[in-house]
Amino acid sequence: MYTPTAQHPRREFYSRGQKNTTAQMSDTTTKAYAALEVNAKKLEQIEIDLLPLTDDGVEIKVECCGLCGSDEHLIKGDYGEYAVFPQVCGHEVVGTVRQIGKNVKDVKVGQRVGVGWQSASCHSCEWCTKNNEQLCGKVKCTCCEGNRGGFADVMRCEDSQFVFPIPDSLDSCEVAPMLCGGQTVWTPLKEQTKPGDKIGVLGLGGLGHMAIKFAKAFGNEVIAISSSDSKKEMALEHGATGFLVHTSEDEMEKAAGTLDFILVTIATSETVEFENFFSLLRPRGTMCFVGMVPKFMIDTFTMGFTMTNCTTSNTGSIKDMKEMLEFCAKNKLGAKVKKTPLSKINDALDELRSKQSAFRHVLVNDL
Amino acid sequence: MYTPTAQHPRREFYSRGQKNTTAQMSDTTTKAYAALEVNAKKLEQIEIDLLPLTDDGVEIKVECCGLCGSDEHLIKGDYGEYAVFPQVCGHEVVGTVRQIGKNVKDVKVGQRVGVGWQSASCHSCEWCTKNNEQLCGKVKCTCCEGNRGGFADVMRCEDSQFVFPIPDSLDSCEVAPMLCGGQTVWTPLKEQTKPGDKIGVLGLGGLGHMAIKFAKAFGNEVIAISSSDSKKEMALEHGATGFLVHTSEDEMEKAAGTLDFILVTIATSETVEFENFFSLLRPRGTMCFVGMVPKFMIDTFTMGFTMTNCTTSNTGSIKDMKEMLEFCAKNKLGAKVKKTPLSKINDALDELRSKQSAFRHVLVNDL
Repeated sequence: MYTPTAQHPRREFYSRGQKNTTAQMSDTTTKAYAALEVNAKKLEQIEIDLLPLTDDGVEIKVECCGLCGSDEHLIKGDYGEYAVFPQVCGHEVVGTVRQIGKNVKDVKVGQRVGVGWQSASCHSCEWCTKNNEQLCGKVKCTCCEGNRGGFADVMRCEDSQFVFPIPDSLDSCEVAPMLCGGQTVWTPLKEQTKPGDKIGVLGLGGLGHMAIKFAKAFGNEVIAISSSDSKKEMALEHGATGFLVHTSEDEMEKAAGTLDFILVTIATSETVEFENFFSLLRPRGTMCFVGMVPKFMIDTFTMGFTMTNCTTSNTGSIKDMKEMLEFCAKNKLGAKVKKTPLSKINDALDELRSKQSAFRHVLVNDL
Repeated sequence: MYTPTAQHPRREFYSRGQKNTTAQMSDTTTKAYAALEVNAKKLEQIEIDLLPLTDDGVEIKVECCGLCGSDEHLIKGDYGEYAVFPQVCGHEVVGTVRQIGKNVKDVKVGQRVGVGWQSASCHSCEWCTKNNEQLCGKVKCTCCEGNRGGFADVMRCEDSQFVFPIPDSLDSCEVAPMLCGGQTVWTPLKEQTKPGDKIGVLGLGGLGHMAIKFAKAFGNEVIAISSSDSKKEMALEHGATGFLVHTSEDEMEKAAGTLDFILVTIATSETVEFENFFSLLRPRGTMCFVGMVPKFMIDTFTMGFTMTNCTTSNTGSIKDMKEMLEFCAKNKLGAKVKKTPLSKINDALDELRSKQSAFRHVLVNDL
């Protein structure tokens, strides 16, 4: 059994928790899959202490959990001290509330809930008070800095405001990836596009396919953009109204100046010449980045002639999450998923590492 | 006397003009200062045909004209075929209407008017009909492609909608630079900032000092940003509420994360590490480019954490120009200028080429 406290890089997190907990000491343990060291090839099943249940906290019996690229980044050490080993990842969690702290009123024991990337904020700063909790200076993440995520049988979240009731009509496995990946594309599409826009989605993996679904459901024309046409059928199935192979000079030239908005969902450490995609934008068009990409060159002079822009977005707020879940329920939207038992998580991780997939892996708790 | 028609790169412009003119042939000539060849060191006084007066056109007796960096770019050949030699520059013109085409209703003979960078648009496309004439595909410029600008005694504009009555209270020389430089900074400040924002103005030349005046008049806190403190006094005089020397690591560190908006008014062919300035932005902050700068690296990953953005802007619309002129009149705003007789234009040009000036040169017609 592992006790990661000594390795935790930010001790104030623990001391804060201890001042204000319903159970002063963690009273149970859980089975979980963890990376025991940075860049671990395989995750190991371990038995680990649950964190203390805070007065605002929620204990969840995990039903399923999406496997996101950020989990892999944490394991590889790309996020530096945010990873604390043994590192239990998983931040697209759906499960059932098993226990709540004494202050919790917004979720009930027995209720089906979801948890995304963010697990806490101060709720009083400028950003929190204007529905931008993702920009709070005290932001915490579900599976970073010693918090333990959903690759486990049971998990505890310290702030019930980041535990979201799941509408009854939604399938647990299909909604799980919406809780991080979905929200990440929902927020910029909601904030930065308007009905009638012609939207390009660059990158057709986990995030990209959800972006196509949302953009289509918003009533927009959606052009899926990829390096080859291998994902064309899938993209059209999800609602893309057009498909652009960006390695074809001919296709790029034909599509020049036609898009109002390009959502870049690619996360890669490889060099991609993103500057080339600005030519696809109409005047006043925007290219928005939501993934982890290397630095690239930008030409504001050429962009200036047509007043085009380069923006970014980061997950979303509590309000965004609630609105997205409601929208998914109303529009019967869910992610395309491939289910794997949690006990076989290394198979899914191997696949994530080796293949470009146009869906999201979801781990189903069988521990 | 020069007849540039043969050298004109876009013949349709002339043929279009000829189909629909009040006077089929130009009936007068004017004295003007022209670059006789690309990269001319000195402008020469010449006698040149006026272009035909179109039915929508306006003939203006020039009173004064600002000297803008874009004039120098045209002379140097940086704008390629937009320059037609002999090249008569000048696109910040104030003068008196001397003759109008038969369709013109919005300006009168004898009226004081101003002309900026743009001289025509189609008035029927998507962009024109939503007050974005600067994005019209048929945009024409006051002193490009064979049009002849305000470094002359008399000039003709083909489209009276781009000839703007000047409010009585404004000084001709002080308002002239507003007609291009002023509008260029007015539009992004109007569109992309809101009252209460903390605004950085990077580059304190002709555009920068006008940006400080507008941002201050909008009721914002304005931080002037420069490579040294040599322009500090001037910046504070114009209304800057703070001053940041960006070559000081210490000052940059103290100012990190404090600005909502940075207007980059620098126009340079030298490499400037603009990427360093993103650290000055608050969450959701924007760095907006209005000048000609080289390509630079951008790091959307780091920007993404705080949802910061990189935008551009290009002059402005007819509506922007009218609103700006009205605002200048109400707030008694004008550019800081240094007046030079038009016959001494080479002195002003030499100074523009050799010195960073925190004002605008204005040529006063003495021809």
